[in-house]
This record gives sequence, structure tokens and C-alpha cells, in this order.
Amino acid sequence: MAPLIALLTDFGLDDSYVGVMKGVILGINPEARLIDITHRIQPQNVQQAAFVLLNAYRYFPVDTIFLTIVDPGVGSKRRPIGVRAGSYYFIAPDNGLLTYALAELPPATVVELSNAAMRETAVSATFHGRDVFAPAAAHLSSGAPLLDFGQVIGDAVMLPKPKLQITESQIHGEVMHIDRFGNVITSIGPFNWVSSEQLTMYARPGVAEPVHLRASASSVTYADVSVIGIRRTYSEADRGQLVAIIASDRYLELAVNQGSAAERLGVSIGDPVTLQIEQG
Amino acid sequence: MAPLIALLTDFGLDDSYVGVMKGVILGINPEARLIDITHRIQPQNVQQAAFVLLNAYRYFPVDTIFLTIVDPGVGSKRRPIGVRAGSYYFIAPDNGLLTYALAELPPATVVELSNAAMRETAVSATFHGRDVFAPAAAHLSSGAPLLDFGQVIGDAVMLPKPKLQITESQIHGEVMHIDRFGNVITSIGPFNWVSSEQLTMYARPGVAEPVHLRASASSVTYADVSVIGIRRTYSEADRGQLVAIIASDRYLELAVNQGSAAERLGVSIGDPVTLQIEQG
Amino acid sequence: MAPLIALLTDFGLDDSYVGVMKGVILGINPEARLIDITHRIQPQNVQQAAFVLLNAYRYFPVDTIFLTIVDPGVGSKRRPIGVRAGSYYFIAPDNGLLTYALAELPPATVVELSNAAMRETAVSATFHGRDVFAPAAAHLSSGAPLLDFGQVIGDAVMLPKPKLQITESQIHGEVMHIDRFGNVITSIGPFNWVSSEQLTMYARPGVAEPVHLRASASSVTYADVSVIGIRRTYSEADRGQLVAIIASDRYLELAVNQGSAAERLGVSIGDPVTLQIEQG
Repeated sequence: MAPLIALLTDFGLDDSYVGVMKGVILGINPEARLIDITHRIQPQNVQQAAFVLLNAYRYFPVDTIFLTIVDPGVGSKRRPIGVRAGSYYFIAPDNGLLTYALAELPPATVVELSNAAMRETAVSATFHGRDVFAPAAAHLSSGAPLLDFGQVIGDAVMLPKPKLQITESQIHGEVMHIDRFGNVITSIGPFNWVSSEQLTMYARPGVAEPVHLRASASSVTYADVSVIGIRRTYSEADRGQLVAIIASDRYLELAVNQGSAAERLGVSIGDPVTLQIEQG
Repeated sequence: MAPLIALLTDFGLDDSYVGVMKGVILGINPEARLIDITHRIQPQNVQQAAFVLLNAYRYFPVDTIFLTIVDPGVGSKRRPIGVRAGSYYFIAPDNGLLTYALAELPPATVVELSNAAMRETAVSATFHGRDVFAPAAAHLSSGAPLLDFGQVIGDAVMLPKPKLQITESQIHGEVMHIDRFGNVITSIGPFNWVSSEQLTMYARPGVAEPVHLRASASSVTYADVSVIGIRRTYSEADRGQLVAIIASDRYLELAVNQGSAAERLGVSIGDPVTLQIEQG
Repeated sequence: MAPLIALLTDFGLDDSYVGVMKGVILGINPEARLIDITHRIQPQNVQQAAFVLLNAYRYFPVDTIFLTIVDPGVGSKRRPIGVRAGSYYFIAPDNGLLTYALAELPPATVVELSNAAMRETAVSATFHGRDVFAPAAAHLSSGAPLLDFGQVIGDAVMLPKPKLQITESQIHGEVMHIDRFGNVITSIGPFNWVSSEQLTMYARPGVAEPVHLRASASSVTYADVSVIGIRRTYSEADRGQLVAIIASDRYLELAVNQGSAAERLGVSIGDPVTLQIEQG
């Protein structure tokens, strides 16, 4: 059975872009199995895509090929890359999209996708998803060895770490993602560079003593709010109440029970968040 | 060939939630076949999900497993359930989501999904779709007997019937769903508790004599309108005209030919609708 | 391996319409393989669907069955048709949706889908996607010959050509599609009736001498703009700059590097566009 190809892009679902990539893949490997992670990353928001990938990849079967495209530099000199790390493959533009996933996987082999035999014969300047990345994923899924795609490189582009600064009394982070329910997911969580001991110490879920959380947003419609304590589930709060929880991917999340925290707070992806610790 | 798993949720398509569930399923059963019904149920609107499921399930093949999740109570004491009814399986939170489908199927066997061997090893407090429901659907699709998942229960939660009150001169119902075209689909239709004879008597499609339909909405932007008669198709109306029709799922529907009835009327899901009968 | 069925509709993803069609297809042919092109064509915009199909179909494997439904005339006397053209099959309402794809393919065999054995037993007046078109695609994918579906017809409905008028100093076109990124895709491009020589002559990509492009929109929020020259890629422009490029499908496209040209210009699908040529 052919490995899975899991797609993550900012192409949206209004256009034929995703469908055309799938047509190209199935033309090369009719046995390919395709799953969408999401295509609604904010247009050209590479960091958001990196964060969503980080929290999704580990739930996929061994040998899954992640076809991940958020590509503001399409047509410029940025390289297309193919990566083997742990038991997964990744196909992406070389712009940092894989940074967070690779940070927690064993050391990766990164190859520049330069072999013209693994592309469409005519490569457009504006749609490498169709002409470069989809064919690469298809050929990989057919069993082509990664090293056949081009030279190993050692200088892949990496994003800076998400903002996460820990002092005795505060944790400063940023908003990484806002989901369909308006839940505000922050960088305060189990990145490689934060031990889970630190997180537990600061953000005790289920603990009764008062922990103040302040989210500060750049938006003018926003006023500082205090959330007392950290809950375990949405349903521990009253309907409409703003709560802080440690959510399923283990990040600190601001949520409104049966409402939208993002709307309530007026925050956007990239806004700063501060977790304030106060002794009882 | 493995049975179909058909997904119906309020998870939306902006996040990785649906993709991650599919990754989990295919990790357990690589042969599983997955179809999306929709993921854009209004956030946490259990009744709307129940209605959409009611009108979709019968078009799927025998032995389809419906993986249906709208779950405001995630992390609370509400139970996860697995159901066999007629020739279908259903996996859902025990909050009434299956009410309308089960009402028209043969008596169901309902099992609480309590067997830890059929879940992810660590179950989060906020994403049972990934940790409980998707694994259950995957194991079912691999052939695990429903009774292996837990104890049979007899007190599954059921929703009240949709509003539907019939008098000599009026039918009172409510708005159950608004579709992409702005068509307003009402509860006035062939629920088990309304015989199709009654519906035909009151809502004669294609009949020429004047039938007045009044939709009353709670929204302030709304003014009562009268629609004369019931049409058979959208195209029997002039462009932009508001019409009442008996639509493909046999409910009374308000529509604007090549426009949006929901926008025209300012109605939302849950608003009341009255069908007024007047003798020629 | 069964041929692909590629779906293109205006049904959106909020409802169960697409999922139900897939359920019907897999009930008839469990081996069918399904790919979504898009379901977010503007409601009832047949011309936009025709344009999106034109630019997608050629990337799909031989024998793909395109199941394409934008159908304002559902329930009226418009015919459902099945088409063989080149190495592809098409299933559609007879309203012109296939016009642009068929214009560049070898002469087509067009059959009216009138055989009741190839439909659901009860055909509703409002959802032929489920009751007529999906069953036809499923039976085709199972190997039923096209001529078994009904009589060959010679008078299929065709759309007029998109606006494209070429004078010595100007090319007049119209906006055909606006994509998720706000890129404005025009009719100025390689339709059959414009030779690529003409296009190259007028719209020299990468050429330095000043070429003025003026987009005129019917919207009142719009003011004429001049774009100097035609770029090869989005990234050749500064962030936020409006550019004209020859995009991946070879049409002239207005784009803003890391922004939305549609929003900047206030244009909509159907608005006129003028390409003005001025000598250095």
C-alpha cells in the first residue's frame, strides 16, 4: 500500500489549486492516498503553517509524506526541498515552514529538489505546487529514493523561535493560531526549548490558587483582561466565560465556553500574550 | 473492502482537527475509506448536526460508519457512544446528535465507548475527536464488534422534537438549516411524527390555489412576508422572487431564485416559521 | 483501477450536498476514486465554473470523469448531458459549463442522460446532483458505455466567448476569476481564439519598456490605476505593490505582492479590463 500524502497549504478551497495538485499526483502515482490537513492557513503566513504542522504530523502513520506549501517566494531563488526526518518525509519550499517539526525530530536529511526529471516538463513561475512540489511528493510515494531528487544541503532556512520568555513572575509569549471556535492558541507550551516541568510549574492545570493570565493585544479594540486560574476543560466554565486552559496540543489556550475568545479579546495571530503568576 | 467512514463535525476546515482525525484513523486501519459529509455545522449546534445527518445518512452504502462530532460537553461527564441501527453504525458524543436519524431507523443498540484499548493511550480533556471517537471508528472499520467497546446502555440522551405544531389553518415550525445558497430549510416536513399525508394535504406542491406562507423571524431586520402558493422548482419563479418549495429532502423550504432567502428574510437557524392555509 | 471522478460544483462545503453525492457514487461503485476540484464556484456562476474547469482538466489522468454541476435551471427542461472529448468524460447540466474545455479538445460526443436505469429511482425536482449526475458518473466509472445513457445530441448549449477584443494599442478583456489570494485573473490569455504569438507580442513578460495596464471596473470604489510593465513573478515586486503578471495558466493576472489585488482595485468577476500598449 502506497504511503499517505498529507497536504497542508494556504491555497484555500475557492480555487482549483488543490484539486489540480491532486490530479498531477494521481497522474504520476495512481495508487497515492491523499489526506488534507488544511488549506486555510492565512495567506503566506509561514509561521502559522509551521505551528499547525508541528501539532499535526505526529498523528500520521509512519512514512507519511507531508506536502506543505506556503510560499510567498514562489518564482524567486528560494529552493524547493525534500526532507527525511524520523519516520516521515516532508516536501516544502525552503522558507522555514518545517522549522518546528524538525526541531523535535531526529536530525534530518535535507535535499534540494533540483532534478528536472522529477518535475513537470514546463515549470511555471507562479505555481510550483503543481509543477514542482506535487510531482516530487508523487514520485516519493512511488518509491523514488530521496537522494535521487538532488544534492543534500546543510543550510536550510529556519524560523526564529516563537516568542517565549520566562521570568520569575511572568511568561511572555505570542498568539500562534486561532481556530474555528475562536480559541486563541499561544506559544506558551511544550516547545523543545521549554521543558514540560517549567510549564507545569507555571501553569498548573486544575490548581485552585489564583493564577492571573493577562493577554495583551496590539489591537485597539482590546482591553486587558484577567483570567483567574487555569481550567482543565471548556465545560468547567460557565457559558460565555473566558477561561485559560492547557489544550489538546499542550499549549496555553484562551477560550470562551460556547463562544469566541478571539472575538472577545480582539486578538490576532502574532499578538503578544503574558501569563502573570501571583502567589495566592 | 473496508466500510466507509463518513465524517460530520463542527470542526471547520481552518485547522488541522479533521486531518489529524484522519491520520489517526489511517494509522489504525490503513484500508479505511473516508468521506466528508460536512465539517461546517455551526459551532456547537447539536440540533443542526442532527438534522443534517438525518437527511444525509440514507444515501450512504450499507455498513457505513458515521463519525459525527459536535461536542460542547467535551471533557465533562457526557459519554461517548457507538450505535448500530438498521444497516449503519454511528459514533458520537451522547448529547442527542443521533436523535433524528435513530427516530426513523429500527431499534438501536447503543454502547458506551469505555474500553481503553479502543482509544489513544493518552486521552486529552479537549479533543476527544482525535483521542476517542476517531480510534473507535477506525477499530469498528477494522471489524471489531461493537460490543467489545463497552456496556450496552438504555438511556442515551435525546433531543426534543423540532417545533412542528399543526392546527386547522396553520403549521408552526422552525428554521432547521440554512444552506450555501441561502435556502431556508424548515422543520415542516416528513419527520416520523408527521405523516406525509398531512404534509401533502397542507402543502400541495404545484397546486394553483392560493396558499399563504408566513415566516416570522426573531431578527429585527425582518418584516413579515407572504408567499403565494408552493412551487415545484426554483426555476418556476422569476429571478429574485421569493418562493416556497418542497425541496429535495421533502421539507418546506423558502428560496429566492438566484438569490438568498436567508438574507432577504433576515432569518437564522432556530427562528419560527408559520405556514398559513387560506381557502381560495 | 477505476477511473477518477473529479468534482466541480457551486455546492459549497457548509451542507451535506457534496458528501451525499459521494455516498450515492460509492453505493453504486465502491471502487470509485473521488477528487474535489472545488465546490466554491460563486453560486450559479456558470461562466466562472467553465473557466475554472478549462484551467484544471488537463492536469488530470486520462479517462478522468469530470462531475461538474452549477445548475440554476435544475428542475426546468434543461437537459443533463454526458460527454466524451479527447481522453476525458464530462457529466454536467446542459447550460454551457463545458464550453471552454470542449473548445480546445477534439470534437466531442454529447449524450443526453435520459436513461432512467442510470438514475436514482425517485428524481427530486431540486437536487439532480444527487439523483441524476452522481449516479451517471458512478455508472460511467463502473464501465457503462456512454451511449447507454441516452441519445447523441448535436445542439448542446454553448456560452459566448469571454470578452477579448484586440486593437493596435489595446486589449479589452474581462475579469474571469478572483482567487483566494485576491489575484485578479483576466480573459487576456491563451484562449483558442487568441494565438500565443499575439499574446506574447502584446504582453511581453520580463520586457523592460513601459507597458501600461489599465483595469477599469464597474465598481464605484474603484479608481483607474496604471501598472508599468509585466513581471514574471509576484516576488519581483515590492511588498504591497500592484503588478501585472502572466500567471501559471497563462492569463494576464493583476496581483499585489503579499496582498489582495481584488481588494485594492475593488473589482469583481465580470468587470472589464483594458491592457494599454504604449511605445517606450
